[in-house]
Amino acid sequence: MSTATLDVLTIGNAIVDVLSRAEEDFLLAQGMPKGSMTLIDEARAEAVYQAMGPGIEISGGSAANTAAGVASLGGRAGFVGLVRNDGLGGVFGHDIRAAGVAYETQAAADGPATARCLILVTPDGERTMNTYLGAAQNLTTAHIDRAFVESASITYLEGYLWDPPPAKQAFLAAAEIAHNAGRQVALTLSDAFCVSRYRAEFLDLLRKGVVDLVFANESEVKSLYETADFDAALVQLRADAKQAVVTRSEKGALFTTDGAAVTVPAHPVAEVVDTTGAGDLFAAGFLFGHARGVDPATSLRLGALAAAEVISHIGARPQKTLADLAKEAGFIT
Amino acid sequence: MSTATLDVLTIGNAIVDVLSRAEEDFLLAQGMPKGSMTLIDEARAEAVYQAMGPGIEISGGSAANTAAGVASLGGRAGFVGLVRNDGLGGVFGHDIRAAGVAYETQAAADGPATARCLILVTPDGERTMNTYLGAAQNLTTAHIDRAFVESASITYLEGYLWDPPPAKQAFLAAAEIAHNAGRQVALTLSDAFCVSRYRAEFLDLLRKGVVDLVFANESEVKSLYETADFDAALVQLRADAKQAVVTRSEKGALFTTDGAAVTVPAHPVAEVVDTTGAGDLFAAGFLFGHARGVDPATSLRLGALAAAEVISHIGARPQKTLADLAKEAGFIT
Repeated sequence: MSTATLDVLTIGNAIVDVLSRAEEDFLLAQGMPKGSMTLIDEARAEAVYQAMGPGIEISGGSAANTAAGVASLGGRAGFVGLVRNDGLGGVFGHDIRAAGVAYETQAAADGPATARCLILVTPDGERTMNTYLGAAQNLTTAHIDRAFVESASITYLEGYLWDPPPAKQAFLAAAEIAHNAGRQVALTLSDAFCVSRYRAEFLDLLRKGVVDLVFANESEVKSLYETADFDAALVQLRADAKQAVVTRSEKGALFTTDGAAVTVPAHPVAEVVDTTGAGDLFAAGFLFGHARGVDPATSLRLGALAAAEVISHIGARPQKTLADLAKEAGFIT
Repeated sequence: MSTATLDVLTIGNAIVDVLSRAEEDFLLAQGMPKGSMTLIDEARAEAVYQAMGPGIEISGGSAANTAAGVASLGGRAGFVGLVRNDGLGGVFGHDIRAAGVAYETQAAADGPATARCLILVTPDGERTMNTYLGAAQNLTTAHIDRAFVESASITYLEGYLWDPPPAKQAFLAAAEIAHNAGRQVALTLSDAFCVSRYRAEFLDLLRKGVVDLVFANESEVKSLYETADFDAALVQLRADAKQAVVTRSEKGALFTTDGAAVTVPAHPVAEVVDTTGAGDLFAAGFLFGHARGVDPATSLRLGALAAAEVISHIGARPQKTLADLAKEAGFIT
């Protein structure tokens, strides 16, 4: 097994976010479950866009945000995801490369437009997402470069990849390449609604060892085991997953493996402005530490620190250099 | 003279901003005068974009920001400015209408792309702008709808309109329509470099009474009279301009007319995040008050309040409803 040249390679839907502030009434009127991610078609995307307020366009995509976070911590990160060669596709490519992430996926020359996610941010900072997958849904195994995957200590996949059908195969191909190269495979369950769509398949990935490390928040874990009892769900998760990171918002986060568990508190944040990207950045912090052989408690703290930065402003990618914040906090040297 | 159905109609370059954080070193390396607005061509725009960090796309344009501010205060606002019918043009049109501004300028079906302004925000919150005018430079008198201009109490024009040559004629045509309808004409000097490009013409507009009310900041006033002595420049401005609003950042602002002058302090702001739009929003507050017959001191305070909101976050348009802030502050009922 050769030395990894990337700490973390992430694979996911390449998306530009359109963020707008909205009142709870708007969500009700539009029939949007607060805090969820709903898949929408192009016509619905146009209708929601027309109804919503002025927007801010900013590159997003769950796994892409995670890659940007790893790079901001000083890690070597890569991303695989598909855009169209249109205006938003250009924005996505510029932004992820400008964030220091290796990104070589060739933009599609035809077919649907670059994916966008219409995000309504309510006054409490919570985000409700409406995703038009567009070009992202055409990601296939052909976009998975073997050497790129082999070069990464950890390949991280988003559960949302289960939505575009050909992407599942790309996901599984990448996992197989990674394992054959002696690397680790991580998965985020993405959101509770995503879990309810693909519960059996996600459990299968954990139980069969396709995934070595799973990321989930409290509601995703409960959704996975169809219970309102978090502690009961956690017992089951620990039986199914080799390693798991569970985030619990202001209650902190925990890491479990075999018999052992480590918990850390949430990182302090002055004001929660926009929770978009909180989970993505938590994963970035933990993955960076994990790839570098840092102990689990410190890796969790890196995750909490990265999440705290991203929820303190609009947008799902760090605005401050996370490596500086992590050094100030004494988590890395 | 019929009753005005719009409080303020603004005419300017229709621009989407691309904001990115940058260190002072980046400005030096790129040869960008800090705090300035530089006109760039498409090739330079591409080169700067490739060199700069991840961006946030958000609708801007000086006069368009002012219109959005007037609407946020509860005023009836309109805007005239030209985009191309491309992706960014769609973003611009959506955002200004979603802000409650009447905007009917038909997007160009061909020609250059929608204008963009690459804005580098340094750690002190100051912004340095690089504008590719694109479609905006093709604004002509044909885009000036007589009835639209006649319907507004005040028609407000940005000095930047002097950059695209045909727009000067559109500017003058709008001013003439407004005056013939018994309305007022306002002008912002836009920035000190803009003043140095068009000093003689701007002075002419003031002295000939084409403009009834001029907006300028301290450096623009000094540039207009080519002096480092603000007080001396102000004496000359008061002789040349029927009415003037001069903003002085943290030193507050003043309004002068005939022999009288009124000054107000700056509105408190917790943290200056991004000064983009400060002058535009100050103008919005003052114009809203002025159009509604509010006294000059209160109109200045409305300007200071609107400016304080916009510099407390990224982007040049208000994120909070200014009418609510103004009511809380007791400036309007």
